[in-house]
Amino acid sequence: MVRTKGRDSGSGSGLGEREIIELMRKRLDILPGSFLPFGDDVSAVMLDGDRAAILKTDMLVGKTDVPREMSCWQAARKAVVMNISDFAAKGVEPKAALVSLGLPRGLLQRDIEEIGSGLNAGAREYGTYIIGGDTGEASDLIIALSLFGTTDPKRMMLRSGAKTGDIVAVTGFFGKPAAGLRLLFDDYVASEELREVLVGSVFMPQARLKEGLALAASAAVTSSIDSSDGLAWSLHELCRMSGVGFLISTVPVANEVKCFADFNGLDPLELALYGGEEYELVVTVKPKSWSKAEAAVEHVGGKILPIGKVTPGKQVVLQTNRKKKLIEPRGWEHFKSKI
Amino acid sequence: MVRTKGRDSGSGSGLGEREIIELMRKRLDILPGSFLPFGDDVSAVMLDGDRAAILKTDMLVGKTDVPREMSCWQAARKAVVMNISDFAAKGVEPKAALVSLGLPRGLLQRDIEEIGSGLNAGAREYGTYIIGGDTGEASDLIIALSLFGTTDPKRMMLRSGAKTGDIVAVTGFFGKPAAGLRLLFDDYVASEELREVLVGSVFMPQARLKEGLALAASAAVTSSIDSSDGLAWSLHELCRMSGVGFLISTVPVANEVKCFADFNGLDPLELALYGGEEYELVVTVKPKSWSKAEAAVEHVGGKILPIGKVTPGKQVVLQTNRKKKLIEPRGWEHFKSKI
Repeated sequence: MVRTKGRDSGSGSGLGEREIIELMRKRLDILPGSFLPFGDDVSAVMLDGDRAAILKTDMLVGKTDVPREMSCWQAARKAVVMNISDFAAKGVEPKAALVSLGLPRGLLQRDIEEIGSGLNAGAREYGTYIIGGDTGEASDLIIALSLFGTTDPKRMMLRSGAKTGDIVAVTGFFGKPAAGLRLLFDDYVASEELREVLVGSVFMPQARLKEGLALAASAAVTSSIDSSDGLAWSLHELCRMSGVGFLISTVPVANEVKCFADFNGLDPLELALYGGEEYELVVTVKPKSWSKAEAAVEHVGGKILPIGKVTPGKQVVLQTNRKKKLIEPRGWEHFKSKI
Repeated sequence: MVRTKGRDSGSGSGLGEREIIELMRKRLDILPGSFLPFGDDVSAVMLDGDRAAILKTDMLVGKTDVPREMSCWQAARKAVVMNISDFAAKGVEPKAALVSLGLPRGLLQRDIEEIGSGLNAGAREYGTYIIGGDTGEASDLIIALSLFGTTDPKRMMLRSGAKTGDIVAVTGFFGKPAAGLRLLFDDYVASEELREVLVGSVFMPQARLKEGLALAASAAVTSSIDSSDGLAWSLHELCRMSGVGFLISTVPVANEVKCFADFNGLDPLELALYGGEEYELVVTVKPKSWSKAEAAVEHVGGKILPIGKVTPGKQVVLQTNRKKKLIEPRGWEHFKSKI
């Protein structure tokens, strides 16, 4: 159903986005035969036979999602990538995408050409196509992407399904976009080379589609989400939807983030846990199927890193050495708070 | 593919929307096996077997699509109706809808509740459901609807397919929203009763879904489009996509529009031809199947009115009495030019 972009990015009315979604949801009748739990990353409609149509829409808004230094090409590509990432997290192959474009008056012809090329580049990178859409005028740049695919519903990886004892795992290292955003918006410093990597991760995000498809095919995964709202937020979402807790033993922080944090006196864990704008997958895996999951992901050139275990409690706890502390349910915040 | 809302509502860059779409289209790779001609109202992906998934997205933007007097409930409902109308024109039953919402900061809780209820009302009115979406902050109110359905591609009514000798027909009378918009934005006058009908047609548009489905089932239609960009524009689109011309012998102007035009010294034909924001279907019908088409539409409680014939020339000509004049390819203009 209607999903939020992050807990703290409430729009108007003093309401948080989760409250907005709840207001909306209460007013929407439910499609009979829906098999997806409310609040998952995608929506589904059963087709004739055993297949389901999978649908997703997510909007990129210039003011809140596109730093000034980001090109129109990059913004358009990102609008595709962020939708692909949700398909990746569910293990569904995207077949086609549509785009609704809102273009502000000041846009140049070159910008529009870049948007077309960026949309196409994002789609083709993940084996899909932009097959239609609509355009009109708006105050902001608006790129509302809709994604379509079909799948065997039994193969889909949902947010709900994590069981006590499962292994919590991720597909990569965290914190680069959080560091990159600080370089873009605040007075932090980094070497030219480091800056390129960190800011580059904001401008050129990567969705873990091949990893997601491989994991779904392995049938080893019990729950899955992407980390677009931040690792901490994703961990909390899996726990909330599965009715479990996590004991996290390691947070895989990217080396570049450690460097950046060290040089600028920042906490690397803060960057890795509460950043967001990155598109790793966060999954839980049946322990007996771990090697199967690992082999599946490595076979497609990806990686999967165990970071903890599913517990019966409802908390997300980080245990490093002998110290335990709670990982907070804080999420990604819109750029708006920074510009 | 990416479709325009009307020729004259170009965004920024000095380009018209058709030029913007052309810039985009050139940069988009084409999904192999696409069977829909570029520029039709919806997009399609073949499924396994003989069915196709039909997809559509169109965005309602507060600034350009929502007069100040229109409620959030009505705006949300309209966002659904304008997408349903394109499915109606193709003869495809909508199965489910998703929504991407951009909410400006000033919105009240009541507004958000109204948006939820309005989306649901629009969907349920046409037998479909809102099954998912996303929300975030934007400068304008943005309601980007995506619609999904499946169909037998052979049954779809395309924009291309009109043949010389076919009957040009519409599902109702024209001009009410054009008159209503003039009442809202200009110094025109009408009786309370008349005002209610005309302004009401702007706030509560109706899509001709049952008519469209009946016409598709009748297999009598050779081309079809809705009139959301104005009757004149729709006639020109069918001609352009089919490579034919039309000789129009009558323009069905709504009685209320005749009254309004008469009282205010306006040309009723101008209102009926070049208005837009209305959702009648404009179709061409094989002459030998006319009674079949008529029976099909009447069976579902609708009407179909013959207004002319398909000709080999590429022009759209209006012949009343013995006078001929060209119907211009002018389309609907955004409210922006009026506020």
